[in-house]
Amino acid sequence: MAEKVILAVDACGGDRAPDVVLEGVAQALAADPDLEVILCGLPSVVEGFAAGHERCHAQPTSQVIEMGEHPAEAVKEKADSSIVVGCKLVREGRAQGFFSAGSTGACLVSATLNIGRIKGVKRPALGIILPGVQKETLLLDVGANADVKLDYILQFAQMGCAYMTSVMGVENPKVGLLNIGEEEAKGSLFAQDAFHLLRDRLPQFAGNCEGGDLLNGDFDVVVTDGFTGNVALKTIEGTSKMLFKLLKGAFMSSAMSKLGAVLLKGSLMELKRKVSPDTYGGSPLLGINGVCMVGHGSSNATAVRNGILSGCREVRAHVGDAIAAVVDRKRQGDA
Amino acid sequence: MAEKVILAVDACGGDRAPDVVLEGVAQALAADPDLEVILCGLPSVVEGFAAGHERCHAQPTSQVIEMGEHPAEAVKEKADSSIVVGCKLVREGRAQGFFSAGSTGACLVSATLNIGRIKGVKRPALGIILPGVQKETLLLDVGANADVKLDYILQFAQMGCAYMTSVMGVENPKVGLLNIGEEEAKGSLFAQDAFHLLRDRLPQFAGNCEGGDLLNGDFDVVVTDGFTGNVALKTIEGTSKMLFKLLKGAFMSSAMSKLGAVLLKGSLMELKRKVSPDTYGGSPLLGINGVCMVGHGSSNATAVRNGILSGCREVRAHVGDAIAAVVDRKRQGDA
Repeated sequence: MAEKVILAVDACGGDRAPDVVLEGVAQALAADPDLEVILCGLPSVVEGFAAGHERCHAQPTSQVIEMGEHPAEAVKEKADSSIVVGCKLVREGRAQGFFSAGSTGACLVSATLNIGRIKGVKRPALGIILPGVQKETLLLDVGANADVKLDYILQFAQMGCAYMTSVMGVENPKVGLLNIGEEEAKGSLFAQDAFHLLRDRLPQFAGNCEGGDLLNGDFDVVVTDGFTGNVALKTIEGTSKMLFKLLKGAFMSSAMSKLGAVLLKGSLMELKRKVSPDTYGGSPLLGINGVCMVGHGSSNATAVRNGILSGCREVRAHVGDAIAAVVDRKRQGDA
Repeated sequence: MAEKVILAVDACGGDRAPDVVLEGVAQALAADPDLEVILCGLPSVVEGFAAGHERCHAQPTSQVIEMGEHPAEAVKEKADSSIVVGCKLVREGRAQGFFSAGSTGACLVSATLNIGRIKGVKRPALGIILPGVQKETLLLDVGANADVKLDYILQFAQMGCAYMTSVMGVENPKVGLLNIGEEEAKGSLFAQDAFHLLRDRLPQFAGNCEGGDLLNGDFDVVVTDGFTGNVALKTIEGTSKMLFKLLKGAFMSSAMSKLGAVLLKGSLMELKRKVSPDTYGGSPLLGINGVCMVGHGSSNATAVRNGILSGCREVRAHVGDAIAAVVDRKRQGDA
């Protein structure tokens, strides 16, 4: 029997909430008999569902933060929103983690304010597991910190290693710095300084990672600022979207190609599953005192299910303890 | 009859030089009867070829800059290399443009030093035409300037508009700023400042472009610093590479899928051609007093051919004059 996990879930976040969220919660509860869910959201959404599902409790809230709202203002003004209430459940110890497919910005602000940072962590970072050819790679930060300082990058790398080891079971993760060339002298002045800091302070550092190596390289963790990381992540998603669109067009272009597509259907579905962002169902926010998984706004029920199950895995892996143990506090003066 | 164009071509640049370069030159000469080539490189490479081809002249040089060399040092130390000599031919007016598939860094340094900047241009920028779903998009800078100032970004946008109008025939190009959200308040502090500058000074500015919109969006020109631009470009290439690799695996996974792949061959070749970087065969360097096209190190003969022909098109479009006419000199005090 696995360790019991209680997760708070935002029933009202995501482009297709609440329907796909509720379906995803039901699937996750069915998949993990040791999972309990506290479903946060409007009473009309959460109460009926919780009454009909074992191991699901309703936490009615009166407000919802919409996708377009200014994150910091919305979190401040909507104290009874599902994103704020869900994070507070984690701080109070009533839940061990929080999942939402709602506004990423609001989740970041709320988790940082309402769950709080791990002692010594300067800035929490948002990660994403990329499905590479050789191996899965954790890229961070993908958007929590558009402007970063040099020592944040070192902490991102340390947190990333702790994540890959504790959650994904990767021994001795190899860390890369996202840069525009392999050699140490390549890149912006910031990237050059980051290279030297990582080389001097991080035993797991394996050198620069170019954009083309994110999916084809040999790195377990790749660190960058949240601006570059977000551009890279969305560029991967956009390239993939374009190619699948063109592929579909190619399949429909003639009677012969249509027949070919029918024959290929099975293996193409398999390919699509391999590169789908639904596999993990969300981005872990690293560096806070609890688990926080942020799902894609466009999540379907499978993605929500997988995001919740990924959150459970993080709780059971005690990723927060792993991060607390390795984060470099020297520059903060509290070591 | 088209305008006569003389291009200097680096016979010794690229992973598969000189063979694929010479083959590409031969194809370009055959395709454009008004093209003359001055072939720069080791005597053993250029003399025999030039003797055997009409409209091709040999410019023997004694040195070659290798891919791994430090660009600035190599350009300084190897005054008789094909990359230096080719650029000098442009400055002396003996050629109107230069093409090389050799070291991008050395080409940038040599073109800037030996051809020189257009008056008022602060920093030349490297562009790339991305094959989008809706339209082709010029992304710049993709690597000439890892660190930029705010007013470089404005000039990149102005140069990009001049390029798209003069060379690609796009009236009223729409310009985007690569950023991590659509709203004006999104992004790093630099990106926010760049947004305001472009909004206030560039009539063609149409807002922020996210990574996912590079290939799926409605922008004709997207501007960014050379660090982010290079990461984005290589991420596109890497994602494409991974998906084609997985696709190939999917095709070979069963007898049925192999048959399907045979039926799809024609339309897949068409798709691959559409997204291939070979279509333009290189990256234009914008802002110098002449044309400079830098081909991919991995160029094949078709890419070299197309890179040379793209260079011809730029010469005939008088892209330098178009850039000189629009570049914002106000901040340089020479207006």
